[in-house]
Amino acid sequence: MTPTRRGRPRDTTVDERVLRIAADLIFRHGYTRLSIDEVAEQAGVAKTTLYRRWPTKDHLAVAVVARLQEDDEITETGDIRRDLTDYLTKVAAGLNRMRAAGRDDGHDDPSAGVAGEMVAAAARHDDIGALARDLYERRNALALAMIRRACERGELRQDLDAGTLLDQLAGALYYRVLITGARVDRAYAERLVENALVGAASP
Amino acid sequence: MTPTRRGRPRDTTVDERVLRIAADLIFRHGYTRLSIDEVAEQAGVAKTTLYRRWPTKDHLAVAVVARLQEDDEITETGDIRRDLTDYLTKVAAGLNRMRAAGRDDGHDDPSAGVAGEMVAAAARHDDIGALARDLYERRNALALAMIRRACERGELRQDLDAGTLLDQLAGALYYRVLITGARVDRAYAERLVENALVGAASP
Repeated sequence: MTPTRRGRPRDTTVDERVLRIAADLIFRHGYTRLSIDEVAEQAGVAKTTLYRRWPTKDHLAVAVVARLQEDDEITETGDIRRDLTDYLTKVAAGLNRMRAAGRDDGHDDPSAGVAGEMVAAAARHDDIGALARDLYERRNALALAMIRRACERGELRQDLDAGTLLDQLAGALYYRVLITGARVDRAYAERLVENALVGAASP
Repeated sequence: MTPTRRGRPRDTTVDERVLRIAADLIFRHGYTRLSIDEVAEQAGVAKTTLYRRWPTKDHLAVAVVARLQEDDEITETGDIRRDLTDYLTKVAAGLNRMRAAGRDDGHDDPSAGVAGEMVAAAARHDDIGALARDLYERRNALALAMIRRACERGELRQDLDAGTLLDQLAGALYYRVLITGARVDRAYAERLVENALVGAASP
């Protein structure tokens, strides 16, 4: 690592531009055709600069996904059925976008697409794994807080295991996208929340 | 494709041997170091034979996982809490084995390991995706039948959406292994089943 002579802070506008270009390439052409060299060329940035910051295209792609997830907000109306459904619909939309990236007929294609590549990237590189897990932890903390407030309001059981509930809800979406290839959308999110709230046991 | 001259049926004992060797290599050294050439050498089979049957190492690895999952059986005692917990404990064990493959300190390593590579392989190759989805569909059909019998017995709600329940249960395990890096074991399976059966809503 050679420190820059004047300790210049990193140019975040360059980062923004690079991530926007990389996102565009991924969503238009898919993961396989993403290349750091092409991003560098389109961004007008030296390849070495990009490789220093994102050593592999896995690193760059995870930064793109992280940047996109920052835009996801949780809205809270105080009706937990609706709030959870809204939240899961947003998660599903993000997954569908990754799934459809670079595919012509993305809509009915059961492949997990870029979502699957991101899982492998996190499994393959320890630093990407740590980054991805940190990202999910921060996103889940917001959802967990929302669930806990619903427990306090009395909508959900006081003794609820909030973490397990969230695993079940988010997990069902990821399972369908990554494993079974089934669709995820608002209608499914509604069914999921209803199922989880009512419980499977006979009354 | 050159058909063999005498239309000889495929030698399944060779398949078995190849898959056993490949499994051993994956579980000892991890996915990255698996190579078709090395499997061919250890099995004493021509490389071309292996490449004809499994065009990439993704194809070979999925065949290994498919072979291992065939050994998983569902046991049914008639107590759905116990039966689901047993089933999910087996699924978790399979995931943990893939997670730990080729890692020295597999136990506390949060990486999804080979499980993550398998997800990407299914996303990347349409034929592997179709094969993997078919595999999960067959496995899930057994679990769904078990859930439906519990509905008929009156342990679970008659109007239960069995598919969504299974998404939530299996999904939570995959979500922890592939996404959040959390542990999965029998204690977690128990919590998961209890949570899903009781439901999150206030009584």
